This record gives sequence, C-alpha cells and structure tokens, in this order.
Amino acid sequence: MSQADLFLQKLERARVASKSLATVTTAQKNAALEAIAVELERSVPEVVAENAKDLEAGERNGIGEGLLDRLRLDEARLHALAEAVRSVIALPDPVGEVLRGSTLANGIRINQVRVPFGVVGAIYEARPNVTIDIAALALKSGNGAVLRGGTAAENSNRVLVVLIQRALASVGLDGDAVQTIDEFGREGAARLMRARGYVDVLIPRGSAGLIATVVQESTVPVIETGSGIVHVYVDATADEEMAASIVHNAKTHRPSVCNAAETLLVHRVAAERMLPRLARELMESGVTLAGDEASRDVVPGIAAADDETWATEHLALEMGVRIVDSMDEAIAHIGQYSSHHTESIVTQDYANAERFLAEVDSAVVMVNASTRFTDGGEFGFGAEVGISTQKLHARGPMGLPELTSTKWLVRGNGQIR
Amino acid sequence: MSQADLFLQKLERARVASKSLATVTTAQKNAALEAIAVELERSVPEVVAENAKDLEAGERNGIGEGLLDRLRLDEARLHALAEAVRSVIALPDPVGEVLRGSTLANGIRINQVRVPFGVVGAIYEARPNVTIDIAALALKSGNGAVLRGGTAAENSNRVLVVLIQRALASVGLDGDAVQTIDEFGREGAARLMRARGYVDVLIPRGSAGLIATVVQESTVPVIETGSGIVHVYVDATADEEMAASIVHNAKTHRPSVCNAAETLLVHRVAAERMLPRLARELMESGVTLAGDEASRDVVPGIAAADDETWATEHLALEMGVRIVDSMDEAIAHIGQYSSHHTESIVTQDYANAERFLAEVDSAVVMVNASTRFTDGGEFGFGAEVGISTQKLHARGPMGLPELTSTKWLVRGNGQIR
Repeated sequence: MSQADLFLQKLERARVASKSLATVTTAQKNAALEAIAVELERSVPEVVAENAKDLEAGERNGIGEGLLDRLRLDEARLHALAEAVRSVIALPDPVGEVLRGSTLANGIRINQVRVPFGVVGAIYEARPNVTIDIAALALKSGNGAVLRGGTAAENSNRVLVVLIQRALASVGLDGDAVQTIDEFGREGAARLMRARGYVDVLIPRGSAGLIATVVQESTVPVIETGSGIVHVYVDATADEEMAASIVHNAKTHRPSVCNAAETLLVHRVAAERMLPRLARELMESGVTLAGDEASRDVVPGIAAADDETWATEHLALEMGVRIVDSMDEAIAHIGQYSSHHTESIVTQDYANAERFLAEVDSAVVMVNASTRFTDGGEFGFGAEVGISTQKLHARGPMGLPELTSTKWLVRGNGQIR
Repeated sequence: MSQADLFLQKLERARVASKSLATVTTAQKNAALEAIAVELERSVPEVVAENAKDLEAGERNGIGEGLLDRLRLDEARLHALAEAVRSVIALPDPVGEVLRGSTLANGIRINQVRVPFGVVGAIYEARPNVTIDIAALALKSGNGAVLRGGTAAENSNRVLVVLIQRALASVGLDGDAVQTIDEFGREGAARLMRARGYVDVLIPRGSAGLIATVVQESTVPVIETGSGIVHVYVDATADEEMAASIVHNAKTHRPSVCNAAETLLVHRVAAERMLPRLARELMESGVTLAGDEASRDVVPGIAAADDETWATEHLALEMGVRIVDSMDEAIAHIGQYSSHHTESIVTQDYANAERFLAEVDSAVVMVNASTRFTDGGEFGFGAEVGISTQKLHARGPMGLPELTSTKWLVRGNGQIR
C-alpha cells in the first residue's frame, strides 16, 4: 500500500470512529478520559523509554536545551498530564446544548443544538503533552482527533496515542478515533492540510511561522491561534501606580506566552510624568527596551527601535517603547502592527476607555488590566484549547464549546410549503 | 498604476471605510439603507440603460434565456429591490449584542459582544440583484463589502455600486465601504481569494463549481453556501398521505433551489405499500425519476439510476429513487452522497425519528416536514444571507448575526496576575 493510501486509511478510520463518538453519552466520554488518566499513570516506564529515544535523537541533532525540555516526559510530568485529563472530566459537556429554539407559525418546532465537528486536526511542534491535551479536549467534545506532533517527538507521540486508543477500547469506545500521523513526516502535514472531507477543522499550535504555513496551505478550515503582538497603551490621564504595575506585569510575569505585552505605547503627557519610572522598573527586571526617538529623549540610554521592533513577537524580556501624541496615534499603531490578540489601555478617562474598547479591533480589548488575563482559565472556561486570533467561528480564548459546530433539528407533523 | 496596485487600492479603501462603519449607530445605518432604496427608485432609467449593455453583450455571447432573465433589471425589479432593502431596515442590528458576560473573582468584568467582521467579500455570477442584497446585509451588520459579481453583469454592478456609494455619502457615511471589482476580470476574483488582511470573510454564491473553486483557492476564510444534494427518507412506518405530500412538495414546489429534494430513499416495506403512488404523483407533476433495480421492480418504466444520479444536484424536475432495507442503509447513503444541507425522514416511529435526528450529519435534519423549510425567512431570520453547508462559524440558514464576529471587552481597575 502506498504512503498516500496508508495516510488516507488512517484518516478514514478516524472519520468513521468519530461518527460513533458523536452520539455517546457524557458519562461514557468521562469514563474514557478517566481510563486515559489511569493509563498515563501506569504506563510511566513505557512512555519514558519511548521518550528517551526522542531525547537522544534531539541531543544528537543539537535541538537546544529549551526544545529538549519541552520534549521531556518524566514521572512527575505524566502524573500532571493525568491530572490535566481529569480536569477535563469536570468540565461541562457542550454537546447537545440547545442554543436557540422556537415554534414556527405552522407548528414546526426548530432547535439549534451543539454537535461535535467530527474530526479535529492539530499540527504542533515537539510537545508530546499537547498530544494528550488536544486528544482529551477533542474526546470530551465528541470529536475524533488526527494529530501531527512533529518528527522530533514521533516515538513519544506514538506511545501516547497507543495508550489513548487502549483506554478508549477499555471502555467500549472505538480507539481509532485518535490517530497520529507523525510517521508520514512533513509530507503528512501537507496532506493533512488538504484532507478536506476527512478533517473538519485544523488547529495549528506553535510558532508564527508554523501558523502562517497552515493558514496559507490548508484547504481544511483553520482556526488560527496564539500569535501575540500585544500592546499596552498608557493614556495621558493614567494613574502612575496602576500603569507601572500593569506594564510590569504584562511584560515580565511570563514573557514566553502569547498574552505577554510586546510594545508599550505612552501618551506624551504620561511619558513626561512616568516613563522614566516605567522604564527603570522594567529594566530592573531584566527587560531590554528599544525605543523611538522621543522615548529615548525621555529615557536616555535605551536602544533605538526599528520597524522590526514593532512587528516582532519577542516572547522574551524585550519590549518596544513608543511615545504618541494622541490616543488616535496609539490606535493607528495598534491597527498597523497588532496580531489582534489583546491590547490594554491604562486611563482614568471614561470617554477614552470606551472609545478604545470600541475602536481597537482585537480579540480581547482591556481597560486598566494586565494583558495576562487573556486566558481560558482566567476567563473561567476551565480548559485551554488555544486563543483564536481570527474572526470566524471563535475569537479570543477558546473553551470546549468552540470545538463544536451546531445543527438544526426540525420536528414537524406533515408540514409542506 | 498597475492593475495589482489599483486592485489593492480599492480593497484598502473598503478596509479603511469599514472601520468607521463598525462604530456608527443603528439609526445611521438604517438611514443609509433608506437612502439606497430611494436611489434605486429614482435611478431607474440610469440603471436600466447600463443593464441594457450587459443584456446586449449577453445576447451577443449567446448566454441563454435563463441567464439573461437573471441578468435583467427593469422598473418592477428595481422597486422590488428597494423594498428588499427596506425590509433589512426592519431587522434587528446584531452589532453590540452582549452574548456572554461575567465578573471574575478578582473584580474584572468581561463581556463578549458582537462586532462586524470588517470587510465581507462576495463572489457570485451575473445576478445584479445580489449586489444590492449583499451590500444591504453587510451594511446593516456594520461591514464593508467587496463585490465580484461577474463580467457579464459588469455595467449593471458598476452603476448599482455607484448608487450605493452616493447613498452612503448622502447620509454622511464613507461611500468607499462598498466596492465592485468586476473590472479586474477573473484575475480580480483570484486576487480577492488571496486578499488576506483586506477581506475578513469570503462568501461564494452560485454554482457548485464556483463554490468549489473558492473553497480550494481562497486563503481568506470562506463560508461555503448553497450546494444542496437533499434527501427525503420514507421510513417503514411512514403515513402514506404525509409521505406523498412531503415528497411531492420537497421535489416540485421550487425545484431550482438548494433546499429542493434530489433523492428519495424508501424503506422496502414502505415502497411496497406506497412507492407506486409516490412515483405516479411525481411523474404527473413532470418529474423524471431514475431508480435503482429494486425500485424499478416496484415501479416499472422508470429509468435506471447510475452513480451520477446520487451525486448530482439536479435543480430541476429530476429525482433519484432508491429502496433501502433499513434506516441504517438510508443513513449510510446520505453520509456518502449528501452535501450536508438538509435531510428529512417521514416516519411514525419515535425511536427512528430521534435516531435520524442524532445520526444524520447535516446542517438541518427534519422529521415529517418538507425540506423546503430550510430557509432564513421560514426560520424567522427575516433575511437570507445564504445557507451554510460548512461546520465552522455558521451552519444552515444564515441571518445577520452570522455576518458578525465577537470580541471580549475587559474592564478592570488595575488588576494584575
């Protein structure tokens, strides 16, 4: 059998199995998740052994300590993964929720209900924990999953998927619902992006480059996630203590994640009042600043920004600083450079707060709060499917309901037009 | 300036204008719609003259009477279009609707509100009425619109868009929000499909071929609409009168539209009881039937079906007929051939009705009702944006809310993590 046929066979298996998943009860899905958690706990030696092969290959290929760390699975991490799966059990099942309903004048009753997508595809890079994560969220929402986790994690992902399939079978569900396609390499990822009819939605998780490729190449509908060129704008009337605290938190609390701030915009009036302090406190926490000319006049000694500064998601202790003459200038800068993830204004001015909320076109727009709050957990969704930066279907933090579609159920007693 | 630059300039104008539209009041948008209706009524000679050029070219090119009729605009049709625009005024404005909201434990208040997409792109074929239709729906939902209506209707579309731009300007809105790109020909359509960053969503309306091309080629997110390979399944226990009435209505009431039935599946028990009557009543209304072997045994004289029969959206008085031995066989047939638009079961059996509703994976699934009810107007939405056959964002009949995205507004008073 050719590689293309083997590939399609796997996808067809996932598709068929996903049909039976769509109508199982919440209790059955929760039993499957508990079985996965138990398998994770009792398969530690098996998983660690397979993971070691990927780690060795990674070291041989010199992939760097950061990537190696993300690749590593040990007993503690597997137990934490099992707990993460159990936390999905606690989430409400979105499937079957009635969103709208009415009785038409002719007596026909219509109900719009949540249904699973079918098969969710995911493309991510060398993080085997995502394999468990996505599979658990897909299963709870009644979906099958086809996972492309990267050749660097191939052995780890394979054993994890075998373990998931075993767990599903142990509670009488079809293990084929979850498939890995790592063995097909880059060609497999390309095929997955073209697997319209087999995969209902594709979620890329990882670098901006990976996401851009998936968006460009995919004929399967994509939910774009995670890229965060995030701005904090300190308005003329901002309270100094509040501005200092929000800017510092947004940049330094966890700089490697998408909701960390990348650019600080400061109104000229506020800059004269407080930019030296904001800059000092950032630099004391190890942040490297790159500023426009005006900000370098106010805070001598910071590096010069270039166009790259504003267009880069640093994901590190680096930050661009720009002084603006008006809120309009700040909103225009955001419109030009933002990835439309999250922006926050710090202000005491009611009209400016409301205008910023209305005019800034991002998934999450904030007043007087740290951008770090853009998060499914913080928003009370319980699970983190990702943060959508697109406008179709889902925008902002995604919970389980965002992994579902809807259908209309129509009940009549013989009506015709 | 190159064609590519001219094209991008138009899109950029629409994008900039759409930003101002996003925050205007419902009253202003309704005033713009009324101005469009008035312009349509008083510009009859101007529009009819431009339309005549397209009709002449169409006749010269021999495009056929059906297409010519769809292309034609006269006084009565323009007045009807004006009334259609006024009916959009009466619809509730979806923008600003609060979908979810809560106060987090730390006092932050979050609200998910509906916002316009930005710019809606539409690709359709030689139907100038769609130009007005889409523009009115886009404007009411706060969106700009970039319209590719086909070279065959280029003169008609140009004058209609000029009229819309004039109407917008007359009430103080930015006329650039609505643009036509017909003058760029097929190359313009191809460019529109790649205009990510300028156009937020692309809606193809027209033939299955057109829709397939847009889905394949577009990097802009697409909402797939309209293709309808629709099934009626007559179950073993179906009431004969009800089955006869629903089947006849679903096929013959308006065969040229997407919610008309294309295939009749009949349980063997029901076939022996009533297929001769169903077939006779269809044929008496001019329907040509193509059946499988079993149905040709029951109703001699109908033509033989082939695989094409089941996979074709006839949009005409043609219908496939197949006898199945079980509901499972009917559901499997639907799974294989349906375009996932609408399917209906006729049955007196409660368990079968509920199982059909649960297991058939289509935008609208019905019990004991004509498939002709899949329609925004019938569902009470007031407007017809199209019927989505995809699972992402919108599924089934789309109203104005389906032309919007959402964003999260977050109001704090200094919270950090």
